[in-house]
Amino acid sequence: MRREQVFWGWGEPGAGPSLGEHAEDYLRGEIGIDGGVVSPPVELDAVRLSEPVLDAALRARLEAIVGAEAVRSDREARVLRCRGKSYLDLLAQRAGACEDAPDAVVAPGGHDEALAVLQACSEAGVAVVPFGGGTSVVGGVEPLRGAYESVISLDLARMDRVLAVDERSLTAVLEPGLRLPEADHALAAHGLTLGHVPQSYEWATVGGCVATRSAGQLSTGHGRIDANLVAARCATPLGELATLDAPASAAGPALRQLLAGSEGVLGVITEVALRVHRLPAMRRFEGWLVPGFEPGCDVLRALVQSGTAPDVARFSDEAETNFTLAFAGAGRAAGAFVGRRCLLVCGWEGTPESVARRRREAARTLRRVSARYATQRVGREWVASRFAGPHLRDGLIDRGVMVETLETATSWSNLPALHDAVHEALRGTLAGCHVSHLYPTGASLYFTVFARADAADPAGQWRALKDAATDAIVAAGGTITHHHAVGRDHARWLADEDGDLGVELLRAVKERCDPAGVMNPGKLLPD
Amino acid sequence: MRREQVFWGWGEPGAGPSLGEHAEDYLRGEIGIDGGVVSPPVELDAVRLSEPVLDAALRARLEAIVGAEAVRSDREARVLRCRGKSYLDLLAQRAGACEDAPDAVVAPGGHDEALAVLQACSEAGVAVVPFGGGTSVVGGVEPLRGAYESVISLDLARMDRVLAVDERSLTAVLEPGLRLPEADHALAAHGLTLGHVPQSYEWATVGGCVATRSAGQLSTGHGRIDANLVAARCATPLGELATLDAPASAAGPALRQLLAGSEGVLGVITEVALRVHRLPAMRRFEGWLVPGFEPGCDVLRALVQSGTAPDVARFSDEAETNFTLAFAGAGRAAGAFVGRRCLLVCGWEGTPESVARRRREAARTLRRVSARYATQRVGREWVASRFAGPHLRDGLIDRGVMVETLETATSWSNLPALHDAVHEALRGTLAGCHVSHLYPTGASLYFTVFARADAADPAGQWRALKDAATDAIVAAGGTITHHHAVGRDHARWLADEDGDLGVELLRAVKERCDPAGVMNPGKLLPD
Repeated sequence: MRREQVFWGWGEPGAGPSLGEHAEDYLRGEIGIDGGVVSPPVELDAVRLSEPVLDAALRARLEAIVGAEAVRSDREARVLRCRGKSYLDLLAQRAGACEDAPDAVVAPGGHDEALAVLQACSEAGVAVVPFGGGTSVVGGVEPLRGAYESVISLDLARMDRVLAVDERSLTAVLEPGLRLPEADHALAAHGLTLGHVPQSYEWATVGGCVATRSAGQLSTGHGRIDANLVAARCATPLGELATLDAPASAAGPALRQLLAGSEGVLGVITEVALRVHRLPAMRRFEGWLVPGFEPGCDVLRALVQSGTAPDVARFSDEAETNFTLAFAGAGRAAGAFVGRRCLLVCGWEGTPESVARRRREAARTLRRVSARYATQRVGREWVASRFAGPHLRDGLIDRGVMVETLETATSWSNLPALHDAVHEALRGTLAGCHVSHLYPTGASLYFTVFARADAADPAGQWRALKDAATDAIVAAGGTITHHHAVGRDHARWLADEDGDLGVELLRAVKERCDPAGVMNPGKLLPD
Repeated sequence: MRREQVFWGWGEPGAGPSLGEHAEDYLRGEIGIDGGVVSPPVELDAVRLSEPVLDAALRARLEAIVGAEAVRSDREARVLRCRGKSYLDLLAQRAGACEDAPDAVVAPGGHDEALAVLQACSEAGVAVVPFGGGTSVVGGVEPLRGAYESVISLDLARMDRVLAVDERSLTAVLEPGLRLPEADHALAAHGLTLGHVPQSYEWATVGGCVATRSAGQLSTGHGRIDANLVAARCATPLGELATLDAPASAAGPALRQLLAGSEGVLGVITEVALRVHRLPAMRRFEGWLVPGFEPGCDVLRALVQSGTAPDVARFSDEAETNFTLAFAGAGRAAGAFVGRRCLLVCGWEGTPESVARRRREAARTLRRVSARYATQRVGREWVASRFAGPHLRDGLIDRGVMVETLETATSWSNLPALHDAVHEALRGTLAGCHVSHLYPTGASLYFTVFARADAADPAGQWRALKDAATDAIVAAGGTITHHHAVGRDHARWLADEDGDLGVELLRAVKERCDPAGVMNPGKLLPD
């Protein structure tokens, strides 16, 4: 049985990094928390669950397909698959509000079993919510029932095989339930790596990344998951959907780009062929302090447009730089330009020649805007804490802190206006932002928001901020999501992104392969 | 009025390169043609046309939308928009068989007019065939009527404006009817270029390239058109479809990748936002002779997988090398390894540093397989003749030669098997192949085929070869088209690429935005 997350947070207490004294001090001063644990999660036994409702004949049919032990209705299985890991999810899970947990957790062993499960559920009228790593922060795994009485969580944990590795073509065919570290472990034996490292790396699955168009910390260098997707196979209620494994094609619209980002509403991805990358000969990470956000953006733009970008580039605005340094205990002493210092972390991977060449170019361009080298230590610290955020969040929520992130992307020309518009919408909170992914035509912006949680209505407090920020993003021309996906939380704004007819076309596709509407109701497409 | 192609071929006689003495001699020896013009095209006046059928009320409505002068039913307009430029198209055009020419040629002046034209045709039940450059080689602009009595050619010639250039974000918003040289001319004033150079460059339009997922000679370096597509706007019978201009997004399936390759069956692309490229500081082209096809493919694979590929790489197999050298008059004297020599043309663009670095890497890798440097002259000759093929074809057809090309792509691992399978299917012809586009995971194969035309049934002769080659491609796991698109000619095989359910999903999309089925009937989707 593979390791599972705790139902109320990111990891077992003590298993990951915990909130340091500096961070707690800083937040006490900035947002006025009291200190100490004010809001602990309930125990598993205290979680409120409803009796599972699943037709006996369907249960028997599902057990015949996947085996009796792969159809679970026990408390632990249902509670863990009740939600993802957004702030709103964690608030509800910590409070033990799992009345709407899935009625059963069904784990197919492969494509054929997944296909049979979907057909059975479609015929029986039972909603199906695919569940990979369960790390959605947009309500993507919420067990909504749509028009139906029952809902199952389709757990992909058993579909975790490496089906093929082609060292010559640099591709691997993987099952969707494979977690990213497991995929990398298997690939390392071939001298290869996925090159896909989202902050959810520890728990996220290959299939979940494809279904949500994930981007990772290395995506500036190695491309988003959709850019690395060579082919996909999908089980739908009406049968198999599979795209050809070809490096490129002009054979009509790219179906694999319809499956990427489909978020389980068409079916479930059962196999993916991904481009993989050779393990780099060397890695180097370092920090810089740049006197201002716009000059730093200009540097990053110049590097990515000249093809010399670092593989990882995380560039914090002044607000984020301040709290990042404060959390690390570096405070105001950490650098020059107090009040106008923006922290840039750059990472390069590859041959020594490629790393050295691009580093030189970055240094030259950064010095031109009077940036100051902040040593490899800053880079190494970033690497060491690259997965820390969601662990720290558990401790922050314990202490009564509202903490969440949101993200968008736009063209280089529009980036300053979008940055300002979102900050304006988040006014009254402690909010900071970093540029997280570079493209020749633009970049993404990733905001982290802290506030003292409103004890009376913490969910409503965040919802109001999220609505304001998303409305501001849409008004300022940004995408509603650069890498978190749509799920339940962004569905209301999908027509702002795709237009009414665009949404209608996606709905037409869904209706054709899921006529009963059992696949992940309430996600991606607005009601 | 912009310059137009001749109705029966690629260009006015004498306007482009013509067939040389060496080529004629070689073909006389190899395929037994007689020499001299045996099959000239008919004069325009001798072309057979039917009386145009277009409801008077609809004509009046169309004239009210686009202006009377933009609704044409004259002989020249109809004949030129009767077909594209495949061998089969040219056979029919040269014979003057234009009985099925469009009933009218309607040229909207912008998005709103295009939208109104499509709505009018959808209501009246008249088929609409979008026409950009008219260079389709897969029957993409054939004026098929579908279920209807009348068909119009929707000519995009008037929609040829540059709507916006963003030098900061390296994007340009262009109208679809803009020809590629016109786009490059306008962009050059900003120090920019499309970086998109298909062999049809002289005539092809921006919108046509997007609608057919075009790849150009520089696509190894600058990416296919679909990789450079930032956003698209489309007029459909049911209204506008527009995608957000963002560098990347996780907001569900990528609608722009549904419009790319849509081949006019959903609507007509009315605006595209493309990533553009800075004009390179330098260009260098050179030739190499490699002792064998597989070692050369290994070199190209190593270069593209290490990120040091040339921007242009054209690598001919032994058969193509032989006729390329013979056509150039170089014959068997041109290089070493007689009988096992494969011509490679490499082109680099960019900063002197980038060109020098990648050239060094290519030379080092090529010398490792005992390749011989064949001078910059070979490279310059390739550049000088890079658009010659379709001009030479006119002269070849004059002389009774069957001449056509076909193309596919697959993974590096599968490339040798696919190469052999297609050659086997073309046995009995003079056929050669080159690798034309490199990807980290694979490459494309482009075949050119010559034979003495079967005077009794030249079309049937090619159809039999094309069927055999496409069946072989499908059986060997290649894509049915890497950059020529599907059109009418590949539609039969689309389900081999996308699966039955995949085709059904595309059909569902079409039915949602084109319920009357007026948009480009008989193309892309099999009947």
